[in-house]
Amino acid sequence: MTKKIVIVGGVAGGASAAARARRLSEDADIIVFERDSFISFANCGLPYHIGGEIEDRDALLVQTPESMKARFNLDIRIQSEVIGVDAERQEVTVRELASGREYSERYDDLILSPGAVPIVPPIPGVDSESVFTLRNIPDMDRIIRKINIEAPRSAVVVGGGYIGIEMAEALIHRGIETTMVELANQIMPPMDPEMAVPLHQEMRRNGVRLQLSDALEKVEETAEGLELSMRSGRSLQTDMVILAIGVRPENTLATMAGLAIGEKGGIQVDRTMKTSQPNIWAVGDAVEVRDFVTGAPAQIPLAGPANRQGRIAADNIFDLHSEYKDTQGTGICKVFELSAASTGASEKMLVAQGIDYEKIYVHGADHAGYYPGATQVHLKLVFDPKNGRVLGAQAVGAKGVDKRIDVLATAIRGGMTVFDLEEFELCYAPPFGSAKDVINQAGFVASNLCRGEHAVCHAEDLPEFSDDVVLVDVRNPTEITVLGSIDGSVNIPVNSLRDNLDRLPKDKTLVVYCAVGLRGYVAYRMLKNLGYQVKNMTGGYTTYQMVKRIGQ
Amino acid sequence: MTKKIVIVGGVAGGASAAARARRLSEDADIIVFERDSFISFANCGLPYHIGGEIEDRDALLVQTPESMKARFNLDIRIQSEVIGVDAERQEVTVRELASGREYSERYDDLILSPGAVPIVPPIPGVDSESVFTLRNIPDMDRIIRKINIEAPRSAVVVGGGYIGIEMAEALIHRGIETTMVELANQIMPPMDPEMAVPLHQEMRRNGVRLQLSDALEKVEETAEGLELSMRSGRSLQTDMVILAIGVRPENTLATMAGLAIGEKGGIQVDRTMKTSQPNIWAVGDAVEVRDFVTGAPAQIPLAGPANRQGRIAADNIFDLHSEYKDTQGTGICKVFELSAASTGASEKMLVAQGIDYEKIYVHGADHAGYYPGATQVHLKLVFDPKNGRVLGAQAVGAKGVDKRIDVLATAIRGGMTVFDLEEFELCYAPPFGSAKDVINQAGFVASNLCRGEHAVCHAEDLPEFSDDVVLVDVRNPTEITVLGSIDGSVNIPVNSLRDNLDRLPKDKTLVVYCAVGLRGYVAYRMLKNLGYQVKNMTGGYTTYQMVKRIGQ
Ligand SMILES: Cc1cc2nc3c(=O)[nH]c(=O)nc-3n(C[C@H](O)[C@H](O)[C@H](O)COP(=O)(O)OP(=O)(O)OC[C@H]3O[C@@H](n4cnc5c(N)ncnc54)[C@H](O)[C@@H]3O)c2cc1C
Ligand SMILES: Cc1cc2nc3c(=O)[nH]c(=O)nc-3n(C[C@H](O)[C@H](O)[C@H](O)COP(=O)(O)OP(=O)(O)OC[C@H]3O[C@@H](n4cnc5c(N)ncnc54)[C@H](O)[C@@H]3O)c2cc1C
Ligand SMILES: CC(C)(COP(=O)(O)OP(=O)(O)OC[C@H]1O[C@@H](n2cnc3c(N)ncnc32)[C@H](O)[C@@H]1OP(=O)(O)O)[C@@H](O)C(=O)NCCC(=O)NCCS
Ligand SMILES: CC(C)(COP(=O)(O)OP(=O)(O)OC[C@H]1O[C@@H](n2cnc3c(N)ncnc32)[C@H](O)[C@@H]1OP(=O)(O)O)[C@@H](O)C(=O)NCCC(=O)NCCS
Repeated sequence: MTKKIVIVGGVAGGASAAARARRLSEDADIIVFERDSFISFANCGLPYHIGGEIEDRDALLVQTPESMKARFNLDIRIQSEVIGVDAERQEVTVRELASGREYSERYDDLILSPGAVPIVPPIPGVDSESVFTLRNIPDMDRIIRKINIEAPRSAVVVGGGYIGIEMAEALIHRGIETTMVELANQIMPPMDPEMAVPLHQEMRRNGVRLQLSDALEKVEETAEGLELSMRSGRSLQTDMVILAIGVRPENTLATMAGLAIGEKGGIQVDRTMKTSQPNIWAVGDAVEVRDFVTGAPAQIPLAGPANRQGRIAADNIFDLHSEYKDTQGTGICKVFELSAASTGASEKMLVAQGIDYEKIYVHGADHAGYYPGATQVHLKLVFDPKNGRVLGAQAVGAKGVDKRIDVLATAIRGGMTVFDLEEFELCYAPPFGSAKDVINQAGFVASNLCRGEHAVCHAEDLPEFSDDVVLVDVRNPTEITVLGSIDGSVNIPVNSLRDNLDRLPKDKTLVVYCAVGLRGYVAYRMLKNLGYQVKNMTGGYTTYQMVKRIGQ
Repeated sequence: MTKKIVIVGGVAGGASAAARARRLSEDADIIVFERDSFISFANCGLPYHIGGEIEDRDALLVQTPESMKARFNLDIRIQSEVIGVDAERQEVTVRELASGREYSERYDDLILSPGAVPIVPPIPGVDSESVFTLRNIPDMDRIIRKINIEAPRSAVVVGGGYIGIEMAEALIHRGIETTMVELANQIMPPMDPEMAVPLHQEMRRNGVRLQLSDALEKVEETAEGLELSMRSGRSLQTDMVILAIGVRPENTLATMAGLAIGEKGGIQVDRTMKTSQPNIWAVGDAVEVRDFVTGAPAQIPLAGPANRQGRIAADNIFDLHSEYKDTQGTGICKVFELSAASTGASEKMLVAQGIDYEKIYVHGADHAGYYPGATQVHLKLVFDPKNGRVLGAQAVGAKGVDKRIDVLATAIRGGMTVFDLEEFELCYAPPFGSAKDVINQAGFVASNLCRGEHAVCHAEDLPEFSDDVVLVDVRNPTEITVLGSIDGSVNIPVNSLRDNLDRLPKDKTLVVYCAVGLRGYVAYRMLKNLGYQVKNMTGGYTTYQMVKRIGQ
């Protein structure tokens, strides 16, 4: 018997489900309803077309209704909003937006992939025509029109997540003075605050004015443009605002159909992407997933998961056993010349959920230091100190950040441990890596911690300068001259430590540190083996400075 | 009791063992004997200093005897060759190369890390001063001197492995006409021959004359330089020769000490790096390892394994339980603008060992096609069709090759399957990847094969044009005009297949193909579901052309 599949939403999750369904059955009736005029477009490319890197608007239209029809024989109905679901009768109600005509359509299986909606806070004036959100092609067109026609001199981006950062970069590329306002003390919320510090610096270096720990409270239209009032009491004059404070699951239909909805508004599904109602499936930004690492319910709006979930829903409609195995939230963002990426749990997430963890930092070269062009990768690794299981990783740098996080995402997916990282055999030739990659180094450091062979002290736990503790800076004097050091430290370069042991008391705790932790660790081992009480500051002065500058 | 550790060889394995030993014990006596004048240098950087990318020779000296002494309190004796081992008496005999003085030194533990020696075939004239090998700093200095003083116009590189390729690139950078002679029908021996085809093209595009399936048989010094005679009967005039046909384990001492030696000459060790004699350990290029995938004994001379093995030997000397878990042979080589990398088993290796496998090809973009600068990654995946276990991977492309192979190396290390690859969550934003990364796509394709949902035909098995088979090219006519197609194919673009079913017979086998396999697969699914007998050519016309050009 011919199956009739109705899909709501024709972009990442919906189009993937439709394509897979057709590949599984040549004779199924597959109808895709899309309220917009576009299907299968590259949401992720929108900021880059605004910024001008992607010159051709058509490049964003991965497939058109015509090409999808030709290739997959789909019945694609654009400008058609599904406004009702009757789960009992297996029927949806559709409104043709052009004509206003409404009709109903029966289904054997219904797949919801309605995505998410940008959050618009209920603040006065936010409905101004100069306040924008960015979710789809019409949103993008509106922003571009504003820029091209009105030539705004300044803009304020509210929200420092992926889209906010990409938009800030796009606006700067367009020569617009850009301010970013962010409620938290950091941008890039999936990362921990100290890891965002180099990103703050990079934003500022490129001309973005960053206003952290502040919030937009009021928008007023004035003769000159907009007047924004902030929670801090400050006010800002600007020509336009981009609101990018996050998205919430589009659950209107789901609620109407009586589907179970999670705490954060996501449609609840099982591992086959089935909702609480028979024959209704849901995928993409609209669904609640389980966090791969913590097992907690989560909303993680990313394109990869949406695409895969669409495929899985189609599989299960045709009785192929297929399960979605939770989301790690691997994500990356270009921040001007830097990239910032993360996977798995962040430290703050683990703290919030009361999960035991340990962490280390490694600041290593993306490829052999002796080959030209090497840059530093700042890598933070979070793991379970009891069994070494990798829980999460974050990296920031100019190059090779995606590679490290992809490898660590794979390690997390495979349930691997920091002891495994020691053994990873990664590509090495001078232009590409190091004989011991940053990841191996992170593995060594974390494994040493787990094995109790390396006692560390974290920058934020640095004991107040006290009589019981001696801070030993083992860098060279020139490094200290250039970069500064921690107040109250004694400087004894690692290579001359053995000649200066008399300067170190055995009855106090020594906290050693270097630039990144490596020489500090060599010093730690030496002193430990000599019977001193000693700890090494993980990540060295580099991490120390990041921690000290949190929120700046 | 103070341990006395003697180490032979002061570079990758030896220096790492020495450093780790000191970190484990402050009071051990650690003596490093190195017959050369340099320790801890970057072997891997030698070709790049010859080529001029690494300008500063000192950059190659990662550590000097002085710095290693200062940091690790080692007794480093350079220009000191260990010429004898008495395993019974736990003693080595050392010759000071400058003075000729010989003396013996007792050890509690002996670590051998003598490396490997370039293979020099026993052919007439090979001892000419204009024939070079490259292993260490003096070798490099000799080559540079030749180039700087004699300004050779032409050079012949014999051997197309990593070092041969890097040297060819270096010589071209120095403006020297370069010919590469290789006995096999391909360069980059760890890869399969069809994967080397783009590398051959890249070498030629950059001016290297490539002479495959040929061998050097005689060298004669003439008034003009060298006259080389080849097995093919050809002869070549040149000014210098770089011999880079591989290395053999340096096992002189090991043999002398009566250690067990493997078939290919490597010192046999257990997983703790212990040799067949008590208190003698061996690491690095000199040892025989086990192949991680096949379990077969192997010689895999790479820096990462050497470094890690050094650390492990030191650990075990101090009774820390530490095991070396076999070598995958993950390797990468820059080939002008391309990079070529591989991990795990190649197809030819599996064929040679009679191991069952299946393979697929994916040719995907390194990042989203709609974001500028995307280039193609050619990825070959080899796996066990019974359980989906990933056995090996090879990739060639301009960008993102190291990333893909590192992820796949991690997957292999974790014993993961092609089904896992479908689920990998990798970094995606337009400048870095795709919502479905090349690796996910490879996972989909391979998983479909394993599940019997995708019947493929390999380019080399393409049936001779016969009445029982219809070849269907589903690309667009313009692609065929530009790139050509396979003789005897019918062209029906995938998007118009449904309208042309009458042109396809149901009683014959249809072999469909497109550019890379994706549209061929869509066509395959459609036709299969319609009851046709059909196969898709994996990797499409791109792989077909690579296979057809093997050996060219
Ligand atoms: C600017 C921007 C940049 C992004 N960058 C990245 C990135 O770099 N990496 C990444 O992984 N992710 C990125 N994302 C997120 C990614 O695009 C989403 O995770 C993904 O598109 C979600 O797919 P989906 O199918 O759930 O929703 P969508 O792709 O949003 O599709 C939902 C569709 O359903 C339609 N719809 C909703 N309700 C109805 C209805 N009742 N009737 C008919 N149609 C309806 C909507 O019009 C919409 O077209 C970005 C998103 C945006 C907006
Ligand atoms: C040109 C070149 C490029 C390379 N590129 C790469 C690359 O890109 N990636 C990669 O992974 N690997 C690369 N390698 C391989 C890598 O350098 C080796 O795998 C690694 O150095 C092996 O370490 P080892 O300690 O076993 O040997 P070595 O590093 O060679 O050290 C052995 C040392 O022992 C000394 N020695 C030997 N016998 C005695 C004795 N009897 N007494 C005293 N001293 C002795 C030798 O003089 C030598 O210095 C490259 C090698 C070369 C030569
Ligand atoms: C365009 C779109 C509909 C394509 O969906 P799709 O056909 O499922 O995906 P792809 O084109 O990547 O093809 C994947 C299929 O081809 C197969 N395939 C991929 N490469 C192949 C190859 N070289 N050989 C054989 N088969 C191949 C895969 O197995 C998979 O098929 P399966 O699911 O039946 O196993 C969907 O990706 C889309 O709408 N994208 C734009 C929207 C979007 O994702 N936005 C957010 C990101 S910006
Ligand atoms: C220079 C050389 C002797 C260094 O050896 P090493 O000290 O073992 O290696 P590294 O400098 O990378 O340091 C690694 C150690 O520092 C620790 N470490 C690394 N980064 C750290 C950090 N950020 N914080 C704390 N500890 C750190 C590791 O845990 C490891 O110690 P362990 O083995 O006791 O666990 C050796 O690598 C060498 O000779 N290299 C040149 C030769 C060579 O490899 N050639 C071939 C490639 S071109």
